Amino acid sequence: MSGLDDLAGIGADRRRGGYSRHVFDDAERHLREWFVEQAERRGLAVETDANTNIWAWWGNPGPGAVVTGSHLDSVPGGGAFDGPLGVVSALEAVDLLRERGFRPRAPLALVVFSEEEGGRFGVPCLGSRLMTGTIHPDRARGLRDSDGLTFAEAMGSFGADPARIGRDDDALGRIAAFVELHVEQGKGLIDLNRPIAVADSILGHGRWRFRFRGQGNHAGATLIDDRNDPMIPAARLVLAARDAAAATRDGRATVGRLVPTPGGTNVIASAVDVHLDARAPRDARALVDDLAGQAREFAAQEGCHVDVVEESFGDTVHFDPTLRDRLRTVLGDAPTLPTGAGHDAGVLAAETPTAMLFVRNPTGISHAPEEHATAEDCEEGSHALARVLAELAG
Amino acid sequence: MSGLDDLAGIGADRRRGGYSRHVFDDAERHLREWFVEQAERRGLAVETDANTNIWAWWGNPGPGAVVTGSHLDSVPGGGAFDGPLGVVSALEAVDLLRERGFRPRAPLALVVFSEEEGGRFGVPCLGSRLMTGTIHPDRARGLRDSDGLTFAEAMGSFGADPARIGRDDDALGRIAAFVELHVEQGKGLIDLNRPIAVADSILGHGRWRFRFRGQGNHAGATLIDDRNDPMIPAARLVLAARDAAAATRDGRATVGRLVPTPGGTNVIASAVDVHLDARAPRDARALVDDLAGQAREFAAQEGCHVDVVEESFGDTVHFDPTLRDRLRTVLGDAPTLPTGAGHDAGVLAAETPTAMLFVRNPTGISHAPEEHATAEDCEEGSHALARVLAELAG
Repeated sequence: MSGLDDLAGIGADRRRGGYSRHVFDDAERHLREWFVEQAERRGLAVETDANTNIWAWWGNPGPGAVVTGSHLDSVPGGGAFDGPLGVVSALEAVDLLRERGFRPRAPLALVVFSEEEGGRFGVPCLGSRLMTGTIHPDRARGLRDSDGLTFAEAMGSFGADPARIGRDDDALGRIAAFVELHVEQGKGLIDLNRPIAVADSILGHGRWRFRFRGQGNHAGATLIDDRNDPMIPAARLVLAARDAAAATRDGRATVGRLVPTPGGTNVIASAVDVHLDARAPRDARALVDDLAGQAREFAAQEGCHVDVVEESFGDTVHFDPTLRDRLRTVLGDAPTLPTGAGHDAGVLAAETPTAMLFVRNPTGISHAPEEHATAEDCEEGSHALARVLAELAG
Repeated sequence: MSGLDDLAGIGADRRRGGYSRHVFDDAERHLREWFVEQAERRGLAVETDANTNIWAWWGNPGPGAVVTGSHLDSVPGGGAFDGPLGVVSALEAVDLLRERGFRPRAPLALVVFSEEEGGRFGVPCLGSRLMTGTIHPDRARGLRDSDGLTFAEAMGSFGADPARIGRDDDALGRIAAFVELHVEQGKGLIDLNRPIAVADSILGHGRWRFRFRGQGNHAGATLIDDRNDPMIPAARLVLAARDAAAATRDGRATVGRLVPTPGGTNVIASAVDVHLDARAPRDARALVDDLAGQAREFAAQEGCHVDVVEESFGDTVHFDPTLRDRLRTVLGDAPTLPTGAGHDAGVLAAETPTAMLFVRNPTGISHAPEEHATAEDCEEGSHALARVLAELAG
């Protein structure tokens, strides 16, 4: 897929493998420039909205628009497809439709959402959450990256005005339907032996930060009995989260980010931040409430304290069944699949009829360099998206 | 203590609190410049040796020298006294001796050892280990900091020649005795109600890196049963290390640094590095061997692998009893104390008669911003060191 080839050199992470492309960093700016250039080359009218999402219009921007797109940022050390495949496929779908002489009756827009992974500021789908007002602008402005820079400061350096962020009724009012194409992040299509599926639902999910505080001290001079080491309750929480997820039907709980302060080998930590990603069909918050209770016990047993902050939360999303079934029919009875992964489409679903297409991932692995999609399946995806756009905008 | 006041603004760590001063970084270079200026202002002849340790001579450099000093680098987020107190006290002892008209019969040298904490390149006492040949120069040259820069590369940027590092028989041959003054890193002097002690022994200690490898994947899309999450055996190792230390007489085991890769909240880690600091009077290696066996089991149970690397090791050191008793007598029957903390003096002890003085720490805390010593006790320390130097070099 030539579009993905263009991006292969941008944001490669030599230490982690894969790609690290975080909102407003050099790699992500480069990707934005690439998208704008690709859109303008196709004669699409490009605009960046107040929430730093990019829009490219085929036809006059206005109500009744059929919108497709995804994101260009990545998790740290992520794969090449998660996000960019949906953007590249949108551009290719435009090319395919034009080759066939298709003229949209409804305006058609391509969108690139900002900070979908929350890889820099911690809140996933930040661009779509801001646009829909599901995060308060003040909270968003105050989010900090790992260097302590706020989202407002980073926006300023990027050349955008942090005072303007927030719910964007004009942008939302133009969308008649949103369709996001995405690489599958599990093994559903491998098992079905099919290249393309239509999404059925997104698992309820959220992020919580457990900050354990103890007493920083010398790793050699401090007797075991004299310690208040926050790493101990943090480790117990990691294991308790695994147990809680295993005991919850379709539950997930993951600690992939754990940050001790100050982080010296010969230093008992003074604090440990445990970033918990938890998901469940109905009760992710209940699962975390139970873990928070356990964390307080673990902390108390070590003479430590713990504060728990919910950084983001989204209930389980069931995509619009009418739109979903329309897509299935257009795509020759494509199968439907649920997903445990969050997407901007899940945020948009509360505002407008929304659907997703998944492209088979032969490794079943995502958020890792091994994530993959074959050239043939990617082409199937672009063609499927073109058919869907023709159906909705024709 | 005016010398410590000079240093109060250098390398303050606003995120962690305390000070972060790592070998060859801006703060540590600034401290080196300060020391050279202080030494030259006193008419001492300054030289930086091939291993980047700094020497300042009162009298002609040569055999029979009485040497005192410590280090200027810190752990991340460390206290103001660990290291600098020994250097500042050495300068003040010189001033005190000169005020009294003292003329050393033996050459007297002040030394600042490089990378004592191993805060940047992982191996503590790197400057003294290189000088004594207890680390191979090739291994030292290849040590990497967290940005992947080698010690050789960092030396080059500092303006030193990495080809020249290694055992320095000339430097060692000049030392007749080494005395390091240091803030106490425990509560021994609080309990004794005394300002100054003479060191008796240093607990055997080492650092090991456990690298757990699993399969990076999506935190939402990957079923619990499909995971090979290296954070799980890493958390179990943290708890096993605590249990092992608690079961070992005078044992310590600490995980203050734990680094998941890639480190995304919505990403199952592909690898987790657990940095273990372990100490015991006789059997630190046996304690770690047992933990390594447990770590292999924990890893296997999660479908992960683990590699264990010993990054540094030093047996328990008993300081020269003749020198120790001579110091006790000079200091009016000062008490003796063992310590669980490592020091350059522990490395030098294998080469030359070596002793340490401890200055009371009213918090009992070290390697943390709360580390302290009162102005009165610091002055007691300088006077004690001056008496000791007069005894040894007079």
